[in-house]
Amino acid sequence: MNQHYQELISRIKEIAVLGSCGAVLGWDERTFMPLAAAAHRGSQMATLAKVGHQKLTDPYIGDLIDQCAAATLIADEQANVREIQRNYLRATKVPTELVEELARVTSEAQGVWQKAKETNDFALFRPWLEKIVALKRLEADSVGYEDSPYDALVDEFEPGARTSELKQLFAELARDLAPLVATINDRAKPVRHDLFEREFPVAIQEKLSREIAIAVGFDFSRGRLDTTAHPFCTGIGPGDCRILTRYHKNQPMESFFGTMHEAGHGLYEQGLDSEHWGTPLGSAASFGIHESQSRLWENLIGRSRTFWDGYFPKFKQAFGSVMDDVDCDEFWRLVNEVRPSLIRIDADEATYNLHIILRFELELALLTSELAVADLPDAWLSLFKKYFDLKVPDETRGCLQDIHWSFGGIGYFPTYTLGNLYAAQFMEKIEDDVPNLWDDVRGGELGGLTKWLRENIHRHGQRYRPSDLCERITGEPLSPLPFLNYLRTKFLDG
Amino acid sequence: MNQHYQELISRIKEIAVLGSCGAVLGWDERTFMPLAAAAHRGSQMATLAKVGHQKLTDPYIGDLIDQCAAATLIADEQANVREIQRNYLRATKVPTELVEELARVTSEAQGVWQKAKETNDFALFRPWLEKIVALKRLEADSVGYEDSPYDALVDEFEPGARTSELKQLFAELARDLAPLVATINDRAKPVRHDLFEREFPVAIQEKLSREIAIAVGFDFSRGRLDTTAHPFCTGIGPGDCRILTRYHKNQPMESFFGTMHEAGHGLYEQGLDSEHWGTPLGSAASFGIHESQSRLWENLIGRSRTFWDGYFPKFKQAFGSVMDDVDCDEFWRLVNEVRPSLIRIDADEATYNLHIILRFELELALLTSELAVADLPDAWLSLFKKYFDLKVPDETRGCLQDIHWSFGGIGYFPTYTLGNLYAAQFMEKIEDDVPNLWDDVRGGELGGLTKWLRENIHRHGQRYRPSDLCERITGEPLSPLPFLNYLRTKFLDG
Repeated sequence: MNQHYQELISRIKEIAVLGSCGAVLGWDERTFMPLAAAAHRGSQMATLAKVGHQKLTDPYIGDLIDQCAAATLIADEQANVREIQRNYLRATKVPTELVEELARVTSEAQGVWQKAKETNDFALFRPWLEKIVALKRLEADSVGYEDSPYDALVDEFEPGARTSELKQLFAELARDLAPLVATINDRAKPVRHDLFEREFPVAIQEKLSREIAIAVGFDFSRGRLDTTAHPFCTGIGPGDCRILTRYHKNQPMESFFGTMHEAGHGLYEQGLDSEHWGTPLGSAASFGIHESQSRLWENLIGRSRTFWDGYFPKFKQAFGSVMDDVDCDEFWRLVNEVRPSLIRIDADEATYNLHIILRFELELALLTSELAVADLPDAWLSLFKKYFDLKVPDETRGCLQDIHWSFGGIGYFPTYTLGNLYAAQFMEKIEDDVPNLWDDVRGGELGGLTKWLRENIHRHGQRYRPSDLCERITGEPLSPLPFLNYLRTKFLDG
Repeated sequence: MNQHYQELISRIKEIAVLGSCGAVLGWDERTFMPLAAAAHRGSQMATLAKVGHQKLTDPYIGDLIDQCAAATLIADEQANVREIQRNYLRATKVPTELVEELARVTSEAQGVWQKAKETNDFALFRPWLEKIVALKRLEADSVGYEDSPYDALVDEFEPGARTSELKQLFAELARDLAPLVATINDRAKPVRHDLFEREFPVAIQEKLSREIAIAVGFDFSRGRLDTTAHPFCTGIGPGDCRILTRYHKNQPMESFFGTMHEAGHGLYEQGLDSEHWGTPLGSAASFGIHESQSRLWENLIGRSRTFWDGYFPKFKQAFGSVMDDVDCDEFWRLVNEVRPSLIRIDADEATYNLHIILRFELELALLTSELAVADLPDAWLSLFKKYFDLKVPDETRGCLQDIHWSFGGIGYFPTYTLGNLYAAQFMEKIEDDVPNLWDDVRGGELGGLTKWLRENIHRHGQRYRPSDLCERITGEPLSPLPFLNYLRTKFLDG
């Protein structure tokens, strides 16, 4: 192996190890950390970020990259160098002080956001969000961009994505989605909301969550499933991927679909090549591709009629007599009800994307100073009226509902919809490739699908950029059509 | 404030922040981490240790220390510089590669030790212990010493302690302790071992553990109480101190006294001056002083007759009818039975120190190569025969029972006995200083004692070296006499 390449990889892996210390601290912060530790946790995250950034921007890394670029490397090594260079160039443009400050502020801001959300107190969070928007704007200006400062931010989550393309993609999607949702609503049969007024013991939900995570392929010998207020998945390192869910006694599907979702993320993390851990080849392609994995399991499999045809009797039995008077058809319609709603994470598959488009518009406006943070609650109200025709009763269920801005994740939301679109487009190919897919799903055998995902997506890491991966797998660039077709087939042709 | 001093403190605090990231990872390793993550956790600990060590041994730190030594500083600042210099000199003598290797090996070895202990398989742990002993010997040689390489190691846990002094202190203690234990045994009334064959619901133990931690003064808004295999306390940072205990349905005193013990440690951590966090003034004086705090609460208060005179009715009532046929006198004798036993952490107050003296002899011999790791199990057997007249049935209950050597803690064990001696010596002073101490203890009012400890010990951090602190508080150097007197009064005059 080329000596410069070897040295480069060794340094990059060390930086990744420091980053993975931050991942443990981040997990701890959202599970077990005492609230009084928030300020110190901020210092810890800031110090780790600073040290990692200093190590990444060491000019010697630049030299090594140059040496590697001039050397004869195999394709995998070239891919690693390509992505390392991308990260290096980005990192060298951002001053270490800004990296440190962002880490500190966003770590503390998460605690403030949580309190603000709990107490419906936007004023409490406002100065923090102002700081964050200003710091992210500084970051965008440091990184540089052609058209929009938003480009510089979204690129961190979705390499290669451009604001103008997202605008167009989302406009196409919104154009067809609005009338489609209306048609679905027109034809909808009534659903039995009374079901989720009953009690579904949390202990049973926990058991089912664990079982479905295992069925999806999540390996508990190399991971955990815990409880948190805002579920997520974190890949800490080889042998250590943690997913989190939450339980509510009246909402068994929140934990069930939530676990399938996070297990989909976890499967991706566990499916990365551990030999390449810490390098781009051992890292997920993008947030959008990551989300495609969670959405595919949660929605395309987990909310499919075929899955419940097989699984419903077991699910029903697990809860004793609670669902004695409910049949599979009623149940399936209930868990697939398309209905405008206040909360993004409770939204159905169709209207979910309107929540994203709304956030995309707002954060774009915040970043470009077209919208002041102080005016965010009002802007939220009026956009909610426009997209959902709903009145937002408070900020807890309004602009304070999501954690993302508190951790500086401006540019993150679009990847959720990209994930939905990728998932649908991948699924068309999976249906061609995996024989008896739906018979297996009906029988609870999910291993064939897991294998396909590992083979075609997980093991590649960042070997291909997201758009290249999509074309390589499906033969087409990303398009909203497969997703729209999927919705039509599911909700109108069913 | 002196500019050099300010810069020095800022750098020392940053190193402490990195160390505190390791504290979170260490806590996680012993609570929630998947076993498969052990190797990666080793890399994480090694990288943090390496970065911290590099930062501490930066020659610029040496320059700053020199500048501070030449400057006019107030006494507190001088104390900080004195201890920082001590750490700096020690750190500069140990190569970064050795620090990194020790962190990596000991992190992994903890998982191996756990498995070896579970499966009674010394051969599994042997090569790891060999590596650790060799690395610790290298560390001792790097640090340097006058008489014994053990000096260089014990000094890390107990600044200023010397092997020759420990030998003498322990010899004096052992000389009087052996006949004292024999006399106690001769006069002992029978105890009701049947009590701990009954079931004490874990949920009730958890409730009592939490309550007693609060009574001791542990602040749950700035800390946690969790469950682990090998209880400990870790002070992560301001607002984040975590204590751990364990529950066994037949052994309610294991969790109760264990929690008092760890809460005693936790109280010390929470009583340090948070303004000085990360500097010597904001750090515990030594492991021996730390242990004096836990032992004082666990034994001198928690196992006192006066405490149970007040608390027994509540304790009995909490467990419903389980102890209906047991009175306070029987109970107190049971939880204070002096009896040679196999397991250190289950030992009574008197024989406990023989466990320590045995380990002290063994690790001293391992470090000086008088004893090969391969011969450790046999040496354990023969020393156990000598000190306890007991046959050790397996290695799980023999030389594999303690975690310490697996994390490289050679030189740590003596601090447990130092803690016992310090606690007894402090207590003589406390009885003079705190009016109505024992009346308050009987009434469950422990705040007066907590206040004394904060005022006289906790808030000082490393303002004074352990031996100076002891003389400052008690007017005398550390001696085994107060501890021996305490045992005589408790077990023979009672």
